[in-house]
Amino acid sequence: MPTILGQNQYGKAENRVVKITRDGDTHHIKDLNVSVALSGDMQEVHLSGSNANVLPTDTTKNTVYAFAKEYGIESAEQFGIHLARHFVTSQEPIKTARIRIEEYSWERIETSDGNSRFIGADEVKHSFVRKGQETRVTQITFDGEKWEVISGLKDLVVMNSTNSEFWGYVKDKYTTLQEAYDRILATQVSARWRFNWSGDEQKMPNWEKSYDQVRKHMLQAFAETYSLSLQQTLYQMGSRIINNRSEIDEVRFSLPNKHHFLVDLKPFGLENDNEVYFAADRPYGLIEATILRDGCEPHIPVDLTNL
Amino acid sequence: MPTILGQNQYGKAENRVVKITRDGDTHHIKDLNVSVALSGDMQEVHLSGSNANVLPTDTTKNTVYAFAKEYGIESAEQFGIHLARHFVTSQEPIKTARIRIEEYSWERIETSDGNSRFIGADEVKHSFVRKGQETRVTQITFDGEKWEVISGLKDLVVMNSTNSEFWGYVKDKYTTLQEAYDRILATQVSARWRFNWSGDEQKMPNWEKSYDQVRKHMLQAFAETYSLSLQQTLYQMGSRIINNRSEIDEVRFSLPNKHHFLVDLKPFGLENDNEVYFAADRPYGLIEATILRDGCEPHIPVDLTNL
Amino acid sequence: MPTILGQNQYGKAENRVVKITRDGDTHHIKDLNVSVALSGDMQEVHLSGSNANVLPTDTTKNTVYAFAKEYGIESAEQFGIHLARHFVTSQEPIKTARIRIEEYSWERIETSDGNSRFIGADEVKHSFVRKGQETRVTQITFDGEKWEVISGLKDLVVMNSTNSEFWGYVKDKYTTLQEAYDRILATQVSARWRFNWSGDEQKMPNWEKSYDQVRKHMLQAFAETYSLSLQQTLYQMGSRIINNRSEIDEVRFSLPNKHHFLVDLKPFGLENDNEVYFAADRPYGLIEATILRDGCEPHIPVDLTNL
Amino acid sequence: MPTILGQNQYGKAENRVVKITRDGDTHHIKDLNVSVALSGDMQEVHLSGSNANVLPTDTTKNTVYAFAKEYGIESAEQFGIHLARHFVTSQEPIKTARIRIEEYSWERIETSDGNSRFIGADEVKHSFVRKGQETRVTQITFDGEKWEVISGLKDLVVMNSTNSEFWGYVKDKYTTLQEAYDRILATQVSARWRFNWSGDEQKMPNWEKSYDQVRKHMLQAFAETYSLSLQQTLYQMGSRIINNRSEIDEVRFSLPNKHHFLVDLKPFGLENDNEVYFAADRPYGLIEATILRDGCEPHIPVDLTNL
Repeated sequence: MPTILGQNQYGKAENRVVKITRDGDTHHIKDLNVSVALSGDMQEVHLSGSNANVLPTDTTKNTVYAFAKEYGIESAEQFGIHLARHFVTSQEPIKTARIRIEEYSWERIETSDGNSRFIGADEVKHSFVRKGQETRVTQITFDGEKWEVISGLKDLVVMNSTNSEFWGYVKDKYTTLQEAYDRILATQVSARWRFNWSGDEQKMPNWEKSYDQVRKHMLQAFAETYSLSLQQTLYQMGSRIINNRSEIDEVRFSLPNKHHFLVDLKPFGLENDNEVYFAADRPYGLIEATILRDGCEPHIPVDLTNL
Repeated sequence: MPTILGQNQYGKAENRVVKITRDGDTHHIKDLNVSVALSGDMQEVHLSGSNANVLPTDTTKNTVYAFAKEYGIESAEQFGIHLARHFVTSQEPIKTARIRIEEYSWERIETSDGNSRFIGADEVKHSFVRKGQETRVTQITFDGEKWEVISGLKDLVVMNSTNSEFWGYVKDKYTTLQEAYDRILATQVSARWRFNWSGDEQKMPNWEKSYDQVRKHMLQAFAETYSLSLQQTLYQMGSRIINNRSEIDEVRFSLPNKHHFLVDLKPFGLENDNEVYFAADRPYGLIEATILRDGCEPHIPVDLTNL
Repeated sequence: MPTILGQNQYGKAENRVVKITRDGDTHHIKDLNVSVALSGDMQEVHLSGSNANVLPTDTTKNTVYAFAKEYGIESAEQFGIHLARHFVTSQEPIKTARIRIEEYSWERIETSDGNSRFIGADEVKHSFVRKGQETRVTQITFDGEKWEVISGLKDLVVMNSTNSEFWGYVKDKYTTLQEAYDRILATQVSARWRFNWSGDEQKMPNWEKSYDQVRKHMLQAFAETYSLSLQQTLYQMGSRIINNRSEIDEVRFSLPNKHHFLVDLKPFGLENDNEVYFAADRPYGLIEATILRDGCEPHIPVDLTNL
Repeated sequence: MPTILGQNQYGKAENRVVKITRDGDTHHIKDLNVSVALSGDMQEVHLSGSNANVLPTDTTKNTVYAFAKEYGIESAEQFGIHLARHFVTSQEPIKTARIRIEEYSWERIETSDGNSRFIGADEVKHSFVRKGQETRVTQITFDGEKWEVISGLKDLVVMNSTNSEFWGYVKDKYTTLQEAYDRILATQVSARWRFNWSGDEQKMPNWEKSYDQVRKHMLQAFAETYSLSLQQTLYQMGSRIINNRSEIDEVRFSLPNKHHFLVDLKPFGLENDNEVYFAADRPYGLIEATILRDGCEPHIPVDLTNL
C-alpha cells in the first residue's frame, strides 16, 4: 500500500463544564471549555475501522464531567493534569493525552445597600457577571513520563494612546507609508507561556497566582514601554515575564497591530491634533515572536493563527 | 406602474471612530461604532437612479469624523444628537435621521510601583485595556421636531447559581421536562430603554450617569430576585428601572435562557448535588417583554433579534 | 403599581432539526433551525412567577421534533404553519404564535463512474454537500384567525463588475467623494417578502416553487440593471418580484454596499484600469427599502439589522 | 541578558484583493485574502526598536496590490509564489517568506432568456454570485532555495445519511454510549495537502486542475466509504488523494464529527425510524490525522485548530 498513516489524534472537543462550589451561602464558579485529544496505537481504526483500541469521544466527555465532581476544579491546569494522567494510565493503547482548556472568568454582582427592601446584600453571594475581558487558556500534554504545561490568554485588547513611534524603516519602490512620531499602539494579545515544571516529583507551580502575575507583568510592560516598534513592545512583554517568573521558560506572542489611522480633517477646515482616529479592521500588521530563557529550547508551536 | 415605494432609509453603517482627549498627560478614550440612517424625499433615486437628493453615504461618514473634532464626544447620546440635528436641518430632502451607536468601554492599566526601574506610574496615563463586558448602545431619532432617544446594552452575561425554580407549568402530551426546585439561572442581557426627553426645550438627562444607574439597578434586580421564572426576573429588572429612573418610560428585554443542565453522574457512581453543569448552546429559551411606566405608549420595536 | 407589562413573547429558539426522508435508496434532507415565540395571557408569570399558563419552552422544542415525524417537512413554510396552528389551537392562554425558520440547503455529491472499484455511483444516493450560499428564512404568524407568511433569504453575496455608476449627488462641506462612472457594485442580500395568502380557505402557494422563482427574478434583476445607484437596483429587484409573482404583495431589502475601492497604483508607476480592488469591511453604505404592490399595506418590520 | 529571541515573523495579514480580468465583455474574478509573514535578521527591531531592517507591513500590503496588476492572478498558488520570491530576493535581511491565501469562489448569475425585455443575456457577462461553499486556502513558503506549497480547503460541510456505524469500541467505567449500526456521519472538512514541487527547475503543477481533482476525490471517498469510524473515512479520503494525485505527498485532515442525535420520540407515542435528528453544536468529536505517501516525511503542522 503506497500510503501510510502519520500523526493522528482524536477526542471530544469543547466540553462546556460549569462547576459550582458552595462555601456556605457563598458560591464559587469555574467555567471551562475542555477539549481532549488522545493518540497512541490507532493504526487499525484508520485502516479497517476496527474500534477495538478506541475509547469513544463520548466517554472522554463523560470523564470530564465525572472528574469535575471527583477532583473539583482547583485550576484549569490542575484539572487538565488529572484528565491527561487518567487517559494515559488507564488505557493501554493511549500513549499521549493533550488537554486544552479555555476558562471564562466571572465577578460578583455588587448588590444593594443593607437598608434595601430586597434581600439583604450579605445573603446574595451567588450572583455573577461574566468578566468578559480575555479568555484564559491552557494546554496539558502527558506522554506517560513527562509533562508539558503551556498556559496563556487570548482576546485581551490593549491600547496606548501615545508613546509610540514608527520610523527609520526600509523604503523600497512599493513603500508609501509616512513616518509616525506619535501614534496609537493597539493590539489584541494572544500569548502562550510554557512552564518548566515537567513532572510529579517537582514542586508544582501555583497556577492561579502565576496567571495573575504573568498577566500583570505583561500589561505593565505594554503600558510602560516607550515603543519604537510593536516588535520592541512584544519583546519587552516577553522578557518581563521571563525575568520575573522563574517557573516560565518560554513565551510566544501573536500580536495583530490594530491600526488606528489619523483621519484627514483638512478638507473640512479642521486640524486633527492626534485626536480623531479611524479604527480599521483589515488588513492589519501581525507580529509574532518567541522569547526564551537563555539556554532553553523552544516548544510552543509557531502558529497561533491560521492567517 | 403596479409597484410603489414604501419606507426607505440609507446611510453609512459602522463608522469606527476613536476620540482621544488629552487632559495634560492624562488621556481619555471614547470608542464608538456609529451608523447613520437617513430618510426623506428619496423617490427619484429609487425610480430613476437620480442622485440629486442624495447626500453620499461617504459624506455621512466624513461628518461623523469631523463632528468628533468639532463637538467632541461627551457621550454617545449627545454625539448622536449633534449628528441627527445636522442632517435634518442642513439637507432639505432629509426629513428624518436615525443614528445608532455602539460604545466599547476601556479601563486604565494599573502600572508599576513608583520605585520601578520602568517609567514611573504617574507618567503612564495613556494605557488602556478594553473592559470587554457589555456593549453599550444608543439610538437617536430626529424628525425635525421631536427627539427619541433609546439607549441600552447587549452581551452582558449574568448568572445566579441558586434562588431559581421552575415548576407548576402546563403539561401537554409533548411535555417531558422535570420540575426544578433549585436551578442555575443565566442569561445574556439585551436591553433597550427609552428616555422621555423629547426636545431641546426640556432639561437633557445626564446620559453617562443615567447609564451607570440603569445598569446597576438592572444587575441588582437580577441578583436579588428569588426567581420562579425568567419572566418574573425580567419584569423585576424592568420595573426596578422604571421605579428608580424618572427619565425612562419604557424598557424592553430580550433574554435568552442560557441553559445549564445538571449532568447525570449516577452511571459513574457519583452524586451531583447541584455542582456539575453542562452549559448548552442551542436551543435556548428566549424571553422578551416590554415594561412601561403606567400611562405611557410603547415605542421600542418588539424584535431585538432575528431568531 | 406604576409599571405595566407591554408586548411579550417567549419560546424555544434555534431548535436544529434534520429530517431524512427515504425514497428507496434515495434519501432527501431537510435541515432547519426553528424558533418558536408564543404570546397571550402571560401577565401572571411576569408579575408573580406563576407558570400556570406557561407551556415550557422545552415542550415547544419537543413539539418541533415530534411534528417533524408526524407531518414531515414538506417545506419550511408548511412546517411552520403546522406548528403555529398547534400552539394557538391547543393552548387556551396562547393567542398568537410566531414561528421563524432558517433553512440550510444541500446538494448531492457526484460520485464515481460506474466502472469504479468503489461502491457504484447509483448506490450512493445518501451523500450530500452543504450548498453554502444563502440561508433561506421564513416567519409564520397566526393569531387564531389570520395567517401571515413572510419568507426571504440572507447572506446571498452578489457582484456586478461593471454597469454601475454613482454621480450627480449632493455635495456639502463634508463631501470629498469623487464621482464614479464605472464601479463594482456588490452586496450581501437580505430580503423578506410577504405572501398575500392569509387563511386556510385560500389556495396555498407552492412554497418551494415560489422561493426558486423569487430568487431567480431577484438575481436576474440585480444582474440586468444598469445601475446609477444601489437604490435603483434595489427597486428593480423588488418590482421584478412584485410584477412576476402574484402571490407576493410586499418586499423589503437590506443591502449593504460592499465597497470595492480601486487601488491607487500610480505611486508604483502602474495604471489601474478598473482591475485591482481593495474589498473593504467597514464602514459600508446600507440601503434599505420596501417595495409594495399598489394598494397594499406594509407589514414587514423596517429593521432587518441592528446597525 | 537572560532572555533570547526565538522564531519570529511579521507582515500584513488579510489583504483583501479582488482582481477583475476583462476578456471582451466577459469578466473573470479572483477574490483573495492574502497574508504575508516575513522572517530573517530581525534581532534589532525586537531589542532596540531599530527598524533599519524592517520593510513596513504597509509596504507588503502595497506589494500585494501592485503584483495583482503586474502579474495578474493566475491562481492563488502562482500569485503567492511571485510574492514570496519577491520579498526574499529583493530584501537582504529577509530570509524566509510565507504567503497564506484564502480564495473565495464565484459563479455566474444565469440571466434571462434572449427574448427578455431586459438587457440580453449574452450582454450580461459580468454578474456573479458567491459560491459560498468551501474556502480554498494555500500557503507558499520560500527560504531562497526551496519552495513548499501546501494547499487545502476549509468549511466544506458534508453528510452521509446512512452507511455509517460505530460499535466495538473500548468500554470503561465512564462509557455510556450505545452502539450505533446506522447513523448519520457529518463533518466540516478542513484539509491541507502538500505538493512535492519544491523548486523552479521542476515542472510546476497545474494548481487549478489539481485543486478540482483533489476536491473531487475527497468528496467521492467520503460518499463511497461504508464507514465503521470517522477515522476510517478520513483515511480513505486521504489515501484516495495520494493514490490519484502524484503531485501530492501528504494530506492532513481535521474533521469535527458533527453529531446528529436521533431524537427519542417514544414519550410522544412515535417511532423514530432514523428520520428525525437533533443537530448538536458542542461538544463534538474531533478526528485529525496525516496520510503520507510511503517514504515521505511529514511537514504539515499537526494543529489546524486551537481546540
